Amino acid sequence: MTQNPVKPVHGWRRTLHEIIFEADTPAGRLFDIILIIAILFSVLVVLLDSVTTVRMRYAGLLFTLEWLFTLLFTVEYILRLLCVLRPAAYARSFFGVVDLLAILPTWATLLLPGTHYLAVVRLLRVLRIFRVLKLAQYVSEARHLIRALRDSRRKILVFLLAVLSLVTIFGTLMYVIEGEKYGFTSIPRSMYWAVVTLTTVGYGDISPGTPLGQGIASFIMLLGYGIIAVPTGIVTSALVRPRPVSTQACPACGRDGHDVDAVHCKYCGTAL
Amino acid sequence: MTQNPVKPVHGWRRTLHEIIFEADTPAGRLFDIILIIAILFSVLVVLLDSVTTVRMRYAGLLFTLEWLFTLLFTVEYILRLLCVLRPAAYARSFFGVVDLLAILPTWATLLLPGTHYLAVVRLLRVLRIFRVLKLAQYVSEARHLIRALRDSRRKILVFLLAVLSLVTIFGTLMYVIEGEKYGFTSIPRSMYWAVVTLTTVGYGDISPGTPLGQGIASFIMLLGYGIIAVPTGIVTSALVRPRPVSTQACPACGRDGHDVDAVHCKYCGTAL
Amino acid sequence: MTQNPVKPVHGWRRTLHEIIFEADTPAGRLFDIILIIAILFSVLVVLLDSVTTVRMRYAGLLFTLEWLFTLLFTVEYILRLLCVLRPAAYARSFFGVVDLLAILPTWATLLLPGTHYLAVVRLLRVLRIFRVLKLAQYVSEARHLIRALRDSRRKILVFLLAVLSLVTIFGTLMYVIEGEKYGFTSIPRSMYWAVVTLTTVGYGDISPGTPLGQGIASFIMLLGYGIIAVPTGIVTSALVRPRPVSTQACPACGRDGHDVDAVHCKYCGTAL
Amino acid sequence: MTQNPVKPVHGWRRTLHEIIFEADTPAGRLFDIILIIAILFSVLVVLLDSVTTVRMRYAGLLFTLEWLFTLLFTVEYILRLLCVLRPAAYARSFFGVVDLLAILPTWATLLLPGTHYLAVVRLLRVLRIFRVLKLAQYVSEARHLIRALRDSRRKILVFLLAVLSLVTIFGTLMYVIEGEKYGFTSIPRSMYWAVVTLTTVGYGDISPGTPLGQGIASFIMLLGYGIIAVPTGIVTSALVRPRPVSTQACPACGRDGHDVDAVHCKYCGTAL
Repeated sequence: MTQNPVKPVHGWRRTLHEIIFEADTPAGRLFDIILIIAILFSVLVVLLDSVTTVRMRYAGLLFTLEWLFTLLFTVEYILRLLCVLRPAAYARSFFGVVDLLAILPTWATLLLPGTHYLAVVRLLRVLRIFRVLKLAQYVSEARHLIRALRDSRRKILVFLLAVLSLVTIFGTLMYVIEGEKYGFTSIPRSMYWAVVTLTTVGYGDISPGTPLGQGIASFIMLLGYGIIAVPTGIVTSALVRPRPVSTQACPACGRDGHDVDAVHCKYCGTAL
Repeated sequence: MTQNPVKPVHGWRRTLHEIIFEADTPAGRLFDIILIIAILFSVLVVLLDSVTTVRMRYAGLLFTLEWLFTLLFTVEYILRLLCVLRPAAYARSFFGVVDLLAILPTWATLLLPGTHYLAVVRLLRVLRIFRVLKLAQYVSEARHLIRALRDSRRKILVFLLAVLSLVTIFGTLMYVIEGEKYGFTSIPRSMYWAVVTLTTVGYGDISPGTPLGQGIASFIMLLGYGIIAVPTGIVTSALVRPRPVSTQACPACGRDGHDVDAVHCKYCGTAL
Repeated sequence: MTQNPVKPVHGWRRTLHEIIFEADTPAGRLFDIILIIAILFSVLVVLLDSVTTVRMRYAGLLFTLEWLFTLLFTVEYILRLLCVLRPAAYARSFFGVVDLLAILPTWATLLLPGTHYLAVVRLLRVLRIFRVLKLAQYVSEARHLIRALRDSRRKILVFLLAVLSLVTIFGTLMYVIEGEKYGFTSIPRSMYWAVVTLTTVGYGDISPGTPLGQGIASFIMLLGYGIIAVPTGIVTSALVRPRPVSTQACPACGRDGHDVDAVHCKYCGTAL
Repeated sequence: MTQNPVKPVHGWRRTLHEIIFEADTPAGRLFDIILIIAILFSVLVVLLDSVTTVRMRYAGLLFTLEWLFTLLFTVEYILRLLCVLRPAAYARSFFGVVDLLAILPTWATLLLPGTHYLAVVRLLRVLRIFRVLKLAQYVSEARHLIRALRDSRRKILVFLLAVLSLVTIFGTLMYVIEGEKYGFTSIPRSMYWAVVTLTTVGYGDISPGTPLGQGIASFIMLLGYGIIAVPTGIVTSALVRPRPVSTQACPACGRDGHDVDAVHCKYCGTAL
């Protein structure tokens, strides 16, 4: 959102922009609170609509509420398009697409009746709640978390690669040891079991039956129990990060990574 | 408890207050120890009373014990009301309400026989154990934990919001992929499954049956296994937070890094 | 072991003591390695003896091996008694008792044939492996871990108390909501289910069946998934502990807690 | 790989070496990307080959693809042997053996038809993906992780030993308490259950049935839930370890705290 190239517009569109997109005026905050309540209720309607017993009894009410929220969100979407300087850029942005997907499925039922699967797309509405994060101090907290995760993405990828290799090798091993008798009917299915075990989920829909298989399973469990320390350590150390590094590059040699209290470039000695 | 506006009373009420509310006198410590034993036994009585075979055989004994503890806690409640300066404030405080809820259900059975569900309210007695935390050094430890959790509440809320969005989206996806055949009968039920999987609980009462569903389930498990690092990292970094260092520099030698409680410069001994 | 008041004895007893109790001579190290192998094999014998099919076929071999190891450990126990200065103190020490429990059950079978349950006591032999920890650098590593756990014991106790309260309250709640139909037959059993759920174990032997119960279960799971951060944060912060504090007390005012680089008492300014 | 004693060869072998072993030329990077795609597809072929329904229908296609990848990897293996200075050293290295094991099983089917179990050895191909880690900045990230794990290996071993002792003791205890009726048919099987419980996996294939057993199981779960903090704390504290700071003080201004790679004082610019 920070690199948003939209310059503020003037007149009523500016006022509208302040209300809809910002949260630092009373009207803007009120709009955000109403929006979040509408989102939560519209999600609840979609959820209840999928429960057979509820749909049987309250079909009419759910239908009415669904159209009410769709109309509300449609008006909101049009207003958003009107009050930004570059509507096309907004429409192509992440939240622009989510805003559209939140209303499209219901309108589509007019043209193509019975689009059951399309209807569940409406649940992407839940992502719109993250708009509300611009309220209050949540932005900086969310940014801190995202930055920590982004900083550790390479370590996490290396870790995931190692986990997937373990899953492949142990899955294959158990396929050979346990065989079809205990539900290890194919290597992909054995790998599914290995993921269930290594991540300490443990459904129990497939579980080892031979003593050797139980021994190896115990080893995988202890491994999974132990290596959960790795992603935890990675993210924690990224969050704890003690010494922030200045983003300033040396004007002479162009190298960066200087401490924030550095006065001279530590590589060539030029004053920063 | 620190901002408790009650000023100490005098005479026997003061002595009583010292015994019941404080733990820095031998009598006060003895009272606390007796109280915690009484609480634990009264909780045990409620637990055993819910086991059919035990209730069958020891109905009379359990009934007697229940009334014994209720009378004891009633006397204690009245004494507490007597020895505080503002009984109404105590009665409305968190522990005041818990103290009342611990005795009310048993008295209510006199008026309304057979209030089965009300009886379980008595188990709130377990919360009374936290009174004993004022014993010894536990207060500061508990306060440290609570402060760390409070400091990280916004990050945790952002994280929970992200988790709930994942649960909604993956729950809906599995509802579409697996369908009723494998127990994913509605979106709320699929979301329940998604929580069971993402949190690595894994009951196995619902588990995916199709290869595609198992693939997505594996992804959710790995995700849940990985992102548990996030709350852990948040709380750990809040707990690790180094002992705050004073920003004050020594007026004599100019060196800083003194503790906030330091009175003299630790390097040259000058008064700060 | 550090506060062991036994002064070194002389002559052959001293040599024996060096071999049996220490690990800094070649003979001592060899003894430790032989001992650990004997322990592992004797544990294996006990394990295999409990498997019906194995006991059927190899009853004689297992019986012979069991007596072999028992005689070996008995000789070792007598030698240990002989070479320490105060045999009674050794016999009452933790490892002294473990050493005795490792051999007693087998001897007891001579007097009382068929002491099935006593036999499993022999598995305490596994604890004897920790003797080997005195080998190499493991002592300091183990001591570091133990110190971190001891430092955080109060925080962990507060956390456990909070978890037990949650388990009691949620267990009771689910007992009322789900009832006997779904296996929540008593409050203790519901509390067992709450522990299974909160710790993310999730056997699935009891699982909620009503929508409301599944909603509360989802909440408990998310709670358990989130608050695992608390013990982790506690232990991590105890292990990370950045700034060691000097054990030196001020010679003038007697207060301690000074930094290791402090030259003057930070409270009264006296040179340390 | 860093201590690889192979000196660069010249001419076409040098060019080949650059392409196959390095990733800092466009050709080398292209080779790595093609290789990783080939590895992933060949793994997919092995996985699908183990699914009965897929093997039934696409036996011919899978057979052709398998030989295509085997020929490709064989050519690659021969080229690797050709362009290194000491082929024998490469052949004996970890990745040399993995490269050979990736092709051997398929060739072996020519001599010994029906080597079903040998075929799964081909899945070790998945390990070859780690060659790609030399791409980009992943090497240093992986090395950081490995170093942290290696630094904490002794603490982790002590922890594992403690966990195995707990598993032995609790497994034996539950074998005595629950007995054969609830599936605890032998001590090794009870220990398998203890691992499943302590690591919070919780299949539910074996679960306690007696109240006392459920109580002890609850204790084991809480223990497992709590002590997961230990490996996490160990790895986190190893990862958090601050960026090492040089002990060198600036010869001009005398200030220290410079990075180990600093050439000039960051405060006054003097060469260190």
